[in-house]
Amino acid sequence: MSRKIRMGMVGGGRGAFIGGVHRMASAIDGEIELVCGAFSSNAEKSKLSGEDLYLSPERVYGSYEEMILKEKDLPADIRMDFISIVTPNHMHYGPAKMALENGFHVVCDKPLSFNMKEAEDLVKIVKKSGLIFALTHNYTGYPLVKQAKMMVQNGDIGKIRRIVVEYPQGWLSTKLEDSDQKQAAWRTDPKRSGAAGAMGDIGTHAENLAEYISGLKITELCADLHIHIPGRLLDDDGSILLRFENGARGLLFASQISAGEENALKIRLYGDKAGLEWSQMEPNSLIVKWLDQPMQILRTGGAGLYPVAAAHTRIPAGHPEGYLEAFGNIYRNFAKCVQARLFGSSVDPIYNDFPTVEDGLRGMKFIETVVASSASNQKWMKLG
Amino acid sequence: MSRKIRMGMVGGGRGAFIGGVHRMASAIDGEIELVCGAFSSNAEKSKLSGEDLYLSPERVYGSYEEMILKEKDLPADIRMDFISIVTPNHMHYGPAKMALENGFHVVCDKPLSFNMKEAEDLVKIVKKSGLIFALTHNYTGYPLVKQAKMMVQNGDIGKIRRIVVEYPQGWLSTKLEDSDQKQAAWRTDPKRSGAAGAMGDIGTHAENLAEYISGLKITELCADLHIHIPGRLLDDDGSILLRFENGARGLLFASQISAGEENALKIRLYGDKAGLEWSQMEPNSLIVKWLDQPMQILRTGGAGLYPVAAAHTRIPAGHPEGYLEAFGNIYRNFAKCVQARLFGSSVDPIYNDFPTVEDGLRGMKFIETVVASSASNQKWMKLG
Amino acid sequence: MSRKIRMGMVGGGRGAFIGGVHRMASAIDGEIELVCGAFSSNAEKSKLSGEDLYLSPERVYGSYEEMILKEKDLPADIRMDFISIVTPNHMHYGPAKMALENGFHVVCDKPLSFNMKEAEDLVKIVKKSGLIFALTHNYTGYPLVKQAKMMVQNGDIGKIRRIVVEYPQGWLSTKLEDSDQKQAAWRTDPKRSGAAGAMGDIGTHAENLAEYISGLKITELCADLHIHIPGRLLDDDGSILLRFENGARGLLFASQISAGEENALKIRLYGDKAGLEWSQMEPNSLIVKWLDQPMQILRTGGAGLYPVAAAHTRIPAGHPEGYLEAFGNIYRNFAKCVQARLFGSSVDPIYNDFPTVEDGLRGMKFIETVVASSASNQKWMKLG
Amino acid sequence: MSRKIRMGMVGGGRGAFIGGVHRMASAIDGEIELVCGAFSSNAEKSKLSGEDLYLSPERVYGSYEEMILKEKDLPADIRMDFISIVTPNHMHYGPAKMALENGFHVVCDKPLSFNMKEAEDLVKIVKKSGLIFALTHNYTGYPLVKQAKMMVQNGDIGKIRRIVVEYPQGWLSTKLEDSDQKQAAWRTDPKRSGAAGAMGDIGTHAENLAEYISGLKITELCADLHIHIPGRLLDDDGSILLRFENGARGLLFASQISAGEENALKIRLYGDKAGLEWSQMEPNSLIVKWLDQPMQILRTGGAGLYPVAAAHTRIPAGHPEGYLEAFGNIYRNFAKCVQARLFGSSVDPIYNDFPTVEDGLRGMKFIETVVASSASNQKWMKLG
Repeated sequence: MSRKIRMGMVGGGRGAFIGGVHRMASAIDGEIELVCGAFSSNAEKSKLSGEDLYLSPERVYGSYEEMILKEKDLPADIRMDFISIVTPNHMHYGPAKMALENGFHVVCDKPLSFNMKEAEDLVKIVKKSGLIFALTHNYTGYPLVKQAKMMVQNGDIGKIRRIVVEYPQGWLSTKLEDSDQKQAAWRTDPKRSGAAGAMGDIGTHAENLAEYISGLKITELCADLHIHIPGRLLDDDGSILLRFENGARGLLFASQISAGEENALKIRLYGDKAGLEWSQMEPNSLIVKWLDQPMQILRTGGAGLYPVAAAHTRIPAGHPEGYLEAFGNIYRNFAKCVQARLFGSSVDPIYNDFPTVEDGLRGMKFIETVVASSASNQKWMKLG
Repeated sequence: MSRKIRMGMVGGGRGAFIGGVHRMASAIDGEIELVCGAFSSNAEKSKLSGEDLYLSPERVYGSYEEMILKEKDLPADIRMDFISIVTPNHMHYGPAKMALENGFHVVCDKPLSFNMKEAEDLVKIVKKSGLIFALTHNYTGYPLVKQAKMMVQNGDIGKIRRIVVEYPQGWLSTKLEDSDQKQAAWRTDPKRSGAAGAMGDIGTHAENLAEYISGLKITELCADLHIHIPGRLLDDDGSILLRFENGARGLLFASQISAGEENALKIRLYGDKAGLEWSQMEPNSLIVKWLDQPMQILRTGGAGLYPVAAAHTRIPAGHPEGYLEAFGNIYRNFAKCVQARLFGSSVDPIYNDFPTVEDGLRGMKFIETVVASSASNQKWMKLG
Repeated sequence: MSRKIRMGMVGGGRGAFIGGVHRMASAIDGEIELVCGAFSSNAEKSKLSGEDLYLSPERVYGSYEEMILKEKDLPADIRMDFISIVTPNHMHYGPAKMALENGFHVVCDKPLSFNMKEAEDLVKIVKKSGLIFALTHNYTGYPLVKQAKMMVQNGDIGKIRRIVVEYPQGWLSTKLEDSDQKQAAWRTDPKRSGAAGAMGDIGTHAENLAEYISGLKITELCADLHIHIPGRLLDDDGSILLRFENGARGLLFASQISAGEENALKIRLYGDKAGLEWSQMEPNSLIVKWLDQPMQILRTGGAGLYPVAAAHTRIPAGHPEGYLEAFGNIYRNFAKCVQARLFGSSVDPIYNDFPTVEDGLRGMKFIETVVASSASNQKWMKLG
Repeated sequence: MSRKIRMGMVGGGRGAFIGGVHRMASAIDGEIELVCGAFSSNAEKSKLSGEDLYLSPERVYGSYEEMILKEKDLPADIRMDFISIVTPNHMHYGPAKMALENGFHVVCDKPLSFNMKEAEDLVKIVKKSGLIFALTHNYTGYPLVKQAKMMVQNGDIGKIRRIVVEYPQGWLSTKLEDSDQKQAAWRTDPKRSGAAGAMGDIGTHAENLAEYISGLKITELCADLHIHIPGRLLDDDGSILLRFENGARGLLFASQISAGEENALKIRLYGDKAGLEWSQMEPNSLIVKWLDQPMQILRTGGAGLYPVAAAHTRIPAGHPEGYLEAFGNIYRNFAKCVQARLFGSSVDPIYNDFPTVEDGLRGMKFIETVVASSASNQKWMKLG
């Protein structure tokens, strides 16, 4: 016996980008329903967004505080089970803390918080609450990313020697923040985005992906961040030399001024038996480059995959799944864990797999270290 | 003022493939909710499927007849608005007819029906009912397919001379119908599938795509269908020479014994100014090959597209959308038309775009003509 | 003990295309030297071309007849060993016949001749002469084409069921023959090209490639040729249904009005174990699509190839070889056979592999049958 | 009036790799003939190699010294015009110096020399001699590399902000130097290769390519070289942060332990108007990613190119040219310059384009600085 779990959304009103993504991703598998929201700090705007989404007016709130308190008072068979936080970075901590302290599970967009202090605090609050917290490092939701992780874990590519992870975009090639573009405005604003620009927005995805697949921690790094657009306040481009705990070397770059690039997250890992290559823009192929045998292309839904890949795939090979489906895997897995909590059932470990508050803390440490490294003449800096 | 529209599903219980696709596709945009279903002709199985989907037990029915009659008696603010038919081909006509005659709109999987007679009948019933009928030739839902259609319509590639459309798959390379595979079993069974196998299952998609993009009707064809697997009862492979109304030439092939192919629907159209190429397995790129200028790659969500492409895209370029999103566009457009009907509003013509019962009739004529041509020594046969 | 073999060229003067290709292809491996030529039927033009090529003026001739007769009178350690015929189709027969009758080996561009009669005649003349005759169906020279042939021969992909071979080009999308373009002029002229246009020029390459790799003969075909450009005299586009001797089905198309296409020869073969795909424009990859295992990409110079592929590759994987290298393989193999003849040595069978006069006769039969089929209302026509 | 120019080769005997490449590349265009060689320091081996190449025995020498002195004494219409040096790095300086001092032009493989001192010396010797010296940084010979350079120069992509150049290979993923593999042995031997391994062998190609296309000098760098294979003596993997003279940022990596990679040299340059991407393994496509227009694919031999690209292309678009053709462009251009010198003619500047001794010196400085940077705790090091 089970039921759909009920979501309340914080942020994501008209004009937002990532809020719609969270809604589509959470809807796709039929495990979650949106029941309420505080879509904007402006109550009127929040109402209009609620209407767009066909919500009952009485469950559209003017603030997350109001939402959390009022929902808490609703009967158990009606009130939301969790909140989804899709606000700019400086607005993650408040709703996450309050939700957890009032008994609601949390899904939070990345990076975890505005700064390290908030991140460390949230780790403690989650722990204390015993509640479920998912961070939407959504790229780990792709089935072939999970396949890659499993191949590394099982030794298929041998000891990892080299990792190259890159995330070029071009959309900030002009000073877009001077226009009305909401996304550009807050992402380039240190008061809302935090200490880093591109490196916080997308570099953390790259860092998370590299550590997720490889199972290796970055131990030292050497960064060069740069602002190419005059007047911009945060880095829009950066490259980082990496060293990993097992002695592997690597590099990471993230850029939002790589003209003409869309969303070209890509990772290559080289072991002593084979190399792996995966590109987010062609997410249904995983290239395996063997030392002494022909290259293989593993395909979403295709032959030769570990069970984890099939468990995160919906349709047969050749019917392309994309960004929303991968994002949906985070929500689907989160939903299964919440349902298990609600109904006392157990969760197949294959689904107990989504980024956590600790991954978020890791990302914040990464940001802090990269920013410090870039400002320093010291070549190598430890990533604790 | 509007609301989500309410769907009742016919078919699509445990073990089905396309039913889940319809559910995910209809859920993604938050315009449709599944409220009831007759998921199997076995009442017990239907119940179990309803539980999987968290439906109220009282709205899970043992037959489509029961569903249509009982739903009709429910209050207007509760009862379903339309049915979605996801059964094998021989089970389309019954529920479609009954739903229409009882005032429900219809979404129906393709091909339209078991035979021509049913198809012609349905065209009349839809017309008489005045209701909305969508056929899920889902590949026309891709944004870049719509872009291609608009480019042809606006003369961007000039007068069309040649069309090559192909749809190779490999999943029936062995006699899979002898195993438990439900999909293989009914698709290769003339009593459930109809007069054609591969050509009905996927060839009609190819035919529909070619006529949709080109805006041209096939006037004559010359077909060679074949059964490669001994003991199989319907074609698993076929090639067809085509002639189009404007004098363009072309060819179409569809195969389910092309070993190792996944779902490789692809179309190329050549005009006197440029060629277009689109592949379903790389759906976010549309290649434009100019006579005297460098080739361009148009991208879902990218620059240089007609408004229709953006209107069917959810997320920025580089965040891949796939099969479910394209399928969802059929449902989303259908939902907008039903909402307009319900609330007396008008629909932007950009959304009034989904395959209709007439497209379904066209597909049935195609099947009939191809099967006749293949059996004949006459070289050319008219496609009425 | 051996030496470079000596080539005399017929045709290929200033303004020609394929003559230069033959010269580069024959030079690349250092086994052949150009020693003389009759580059044009205009003696003055021939002289100028000879100067461009740094030939001794006394070995630049005004006609092939002059060349053959005068070279025959030169001492054995100086005179040419073979002629290379790179003239338009109607000018193949004359020099080939005369060379063979005067003891010179022959390399001849394709198609073999202007018509069937010449082709049948040449087969007899070659046989009678006992000399070596190579026809430059150059695409069979690619290492991965040879790999594909060997895989089929060894049963790696199982019994072949389906073959799709295509050759779209776009360069004749306008009436280029009305300009000064020499290539367009003769290729569209029935008096120089023969009975077919695109189908003779490039369709025969497709036919040759399909039969070469598959080891199967086409037994029946059904063709639809068309002239799209008003006033053009030969087909510029055509599609053909094919049946092969083992029951396999297939299709072939060749087009020179496929706007924006470059030289997109591509073949796909599907057996009951796997499919193979090779594209001339990406010639260093051979895609193997297995029924139940991940797809593989075999690479020129890479792992997992048969010896024949390595024997036709010059440089390590990742250093792309192209059209000239493949063309050069025809010349290299021809040279090895001529050297063996000269010095009484034997040739490793791996090199005794190039298209022959019989392949040329086959191509001429193909042209004749296709043209007849296209003009007929009879559906199937035998290819003898 | 002109003639083929005559080449004497130093190194490149049986078992060598790059010698054969130089011979094929120099032969392809018919402007150069190999007339003599000192193929090995072992006179017997040199003879055997000379026989393989059909050279007159009297022009096959036991040492480069012998070759230079004896050829110098031959009549002007017979003796070689230049030497081509294809020995390991520590054997470049000796023959280059002696050839130049005896009046012979030089083609030399890269990197220029064993160390900086030799490089600086060679620059002076070339200058003093007034002779022509070409260094085979062959990747700059590709037509689309020249197209890219011209696009940057003409401002088509705007001010360059970011350059990413990478050169992964996998062939040294095992300790291949312990086997009989000659190539691995000398390349990993500090006594023959010089101060760097992978970074000298292929990193210098990457550096040369980046500076060639961008027209920008690297001013500062921060390197991390590594030896992954225990017991290996030189770096087999390295990553470098780069800063360019105009403020652009970038990175370069070169690796020979990237398992499964073939020869994957690739460069991306991002300006404020567009990005460019070129991959050596797909050398006939240059991707142009515009800020606000659809991406374009420029093609070798295709539309929309600068004249320089056509001047380095032999055959029409779609007939792939590769590594040997690009390498041949270096030789062809060198030959044209030597011919002009011989016959007092002038050279079209479009052909006066090949890497010089100064490029070689630059490469040696790069090696020296990278090695120093990697060994240092100082973050940034100037590249003079």
